[in-house]
Amino acid sequence: MAKGVRDFGPEEKIERDRIVQILKRVFESFGYNPIETPVLERYELFASKYGIGMESDAMRETFKLKDQGGRDLVLRTEFTVPFSRFVAMNPQLRKPFKRYQMGTVFRDGPIKLGRYREFWQCDVDVVGVGNPAIDAEILQLAQEAFSQLGLEVEIRINNRKILNGILQYAGVSAEAELSAIIAIDKLDKIGPEGVKTELQKRGVADKSIDTIVELITIQGSNNDIITKLRAKLGDNEGLREVERTVRYVVDDENILVLPSLARGLAYYTGNVFEVYLKNRATLSSSVGAGGRYDEMIAGFLKSNQPYPAVGISFGLETIFDAIKLLKQDGQSPKSVVQVYVSPFSQEYIPKAMEIAAALRRATVRVDVDYLSRKLKKNLEHASVYQIPWVVILGDNEIEQEKVMLRNMRTGEQALLAMDEVIKTINK
Amino acid sequence: MAKGVRDFGPEEKIERDRIVQILKRVFESFGYNPIETPVLERYELFASKYGIGMESDAMRETFKLKDQGGRDLVLRTEFTVPFSRFVAMNPQLRKPFKRYQMGTVFRDGPIKLGRYREFWQCDVDVVGVGNPAIDAEILQLAQEAFSQLGLEVEIRINNRKILNGILQYAGVSAEAELSAIIAIDKLDKIGPEGVKTELQKRGVADKSIDTIVELITIQGSNNDIITKLRAKLGDNEGLREVERTVRYVVDDENILVLPSLARGLAYYTGNVFEVYLKNRATLSSSVGAGGRYDEMIAGFLKSNQPYPAVGISFGLETIFDAIKLLKQDGQSPKSVVQVYVSPFSQEYIPKAMEIAAALRRATVRVDVDYLSRKLKKNLEHASVYQIPWVVILGDNEIEQEKVMLRNMRTGEQALLAMDEVIKTINK
Repeated sequence: MAKGVRDFGPEEKIERDRIVQILKRVFESFGYNPIETPVLERYELFASKYGIGMESDAMRETFKLKDQGGRDLVLRTEFTVPFSRFVAMNPQLRKPFKRYQMGTVFRDGPIKLGRYREFWQCDVDVVGVGNPAIDAEILQLAQEAFSQLGLEVEIRINNRKILNGILQYAGVSAEAELSAIIAIDKLDKIGPEGVKTELQKRGVADKSIDTIVELITIQGSNNDIITKLRAKLGDNEGLREVERTVRYVVDDENILVLPSLARGLAYYTGNVFEVYLKNRATLSSSVGAGGRYDEMIAGFLKSNQPYPAVGISFGLETIFDAIKLLKQDGQSPKSVVQVYVSPFSQEYIPKAMEIAAALRRATVRVDVDYLSRKLKKNLEHASVYQIPWVVILGDNEIEQEKVMLRNMRTGEQALLAMDEVIKTINK
Repeated sequence: MAKGVRDFGPEEKIERDRIVQILKRVFESFGYNPIETPVLERYELFASKYGIGMESDAMRETFKLKDQGGRDLVLRTEFTVPFSRFVAMNPQLRKPFKRYQMGTVFRDGPIKLGRYREFWQCDVDVVGVGNPAIDAEILQLAQEAFSQLGLEVEIRINNRKILNGILQYAGVSAEAELSAIIAIDKLDKIGPEGVKTELQKRGVADKSIDTIVELITIQGSNNDIITKLRAKLGDNEGLREVERTVRYVVDDENILVLPSLARGLAYYTGNVFEVYLKNRATLSSSVGAGGRYDEMIAGFLKSNQPYPAVGISFGLETIFDAIKLLKQDGQSPKSVVQVYVSPFSQEYIPKAMEIAAALRRATVRVDVDYLSRKLKKNLEHASVYQIPWVVILGDNEIEQEKVMLRNMRTGEQALLAMDEVIKTINK
């Protein structure tokens, strides 16, 4: 097996499918339609300065390959760049255009705990709307998704224009902004003193550093933070956008304005979001993240018009881990099978297959023992896989044209005709 | 965009998801559990003589790459080899083990009509059962899947041991068998004369060729063909396996025993299957194929014990094409959205979002116009995407605390309270 990739057996895959199904239902309830872009993309697309950029860490950790024609390809590392390519290539698409995409993305990075080379992301994005009401809709969608997943989360929001405003106010030059932002983004991990050291290393003047750290650590309610920042920065567009977004969300109890939040990627232009479990002691990684990238599609189109776009990405791996950490043992189903049919001998297999077909017609999920093993072995099989019912087919049952139905939870069994079996199971 | 790969927009993706959902439901109803193996696999696994083999066409058309550690990797070309690796690596798995897997596989081949470099396959396989009853179950599963997909199909069956028997009977040496089988497999495409020429090219003696072509073109009912072959080959294990498989299927009306069917891959050991549309004029490619490979897992385990395994693979691309060819225009949904909310002005957007939230709570899929465009534009939007309902929110509606609900099919509209809206839509 390749390094840094995983197999998911039935128990894990059933749970992963369940999570994906919930996200799909929530995404569609907010009017997002599914699309699928390929795993293989052109190297130039991702390396482009409008993509993730030739010099980025993400590009260094991108799987590169060539096709037989010698063309340079990559395995996609995320869905935002391919989505922007899709929009740029399809000018006939009516805007606004809302889509979701779920599937595997790839990173050829060092293998650490919880870092894999293949992992699933589940993204929603919308192009063609600049109004922060749609940013608010995306936060509402995140609230609804995590509520349906049974996870209590906190959604952090900031805006690149607030960060730019803070840096300008602190006297940092435009060229040094991106480097300073990367330092600021680490506040959560390394604390204010750590950020100070990091900013020093990056050549920011001490006086500027004090101002920056003062502003990114402002405390208070969302309104307090916005008011205090406005007192310093004046009429900042980012502050207005965050303010309007939070107001549109309505139920903003778990929304937290956090002036230090930056998100690593260079392509964000406005609001940025990150979602964490409320109890970060359970799991400290983010379970979702996103933001506004109004320049990427315009870049691909070589257009001067900004092309408003905003989205959020949910990480299936961290959501799966979070649910597993919160779940009691044994709550995940081990199998999709509802009924296991156990014929006493080879000659009863055709009858067992007939019974299975009748159950399937009644939308029951059913498996048959084609090895006609001993009943004890089959009951053990059903018990290990937590299959709730076993249909037993022996001489007596065949003679009476009935089957023995065993309830694996209670151990009770009864000799029943097929229509009674179906009625009992569907109850 | 990379060569030979595709984007699927909403209309195509909704239909692809629908097909996948039907297959998933059928697979699970037959007791198959989902698993997921990675896209990236070790080069050595696929190149192994138990895999697809270093010298095979399939291996030549496999995408190869290296990770940063310099390890040789491939993008999976199919699911049988990874599944066999999964079984070999997990000795604790209880047998029989039935699983399905659906997802993208890759081929770096020449780009032709209908041949892509990324495509979806949907596979079911079972290990641990040698009894042909399970082969029959797989054929029943295929019958049920295509019936639920609304496609009339013919399922062809043959057995590698029948082919080997025919070649031995015709005096072909054991070493020349695989080469001859590749020629025989082309009967369908190039006819008996073509096969003769092909066998000559491959160095088979003329006398042997006549015998081979006579036997692979035997006509008649399934029983006739088996009886006639048995008269020549004697007690052939392959004939017994095919006979028992067909008998277990019960409803064998669309099952066709075809002595020329071989399937290209070297790893098959017993029964082989191929599924075609009954009306091949519509689409000549197969929509599913599989067979028994009792030696692959044993090979990976370096064991002398055969390890019974059988499965079938459904091709999403050809199934999609077949359904599209049979469908009337305009039958595919263009969007998942059921209700489009159209507020008259920016200031009604919060109210529109509130209405959307209420509809979602009633499990309605709803989208909102955040640009507050003119009603005419929004009705056009709903019409293009075939969204059945539009909720109109203007001064009058706000004043009366009601909304205007427009039925896009009939053009009727009515001023309703929210509970009436939900009732009307759910009707």
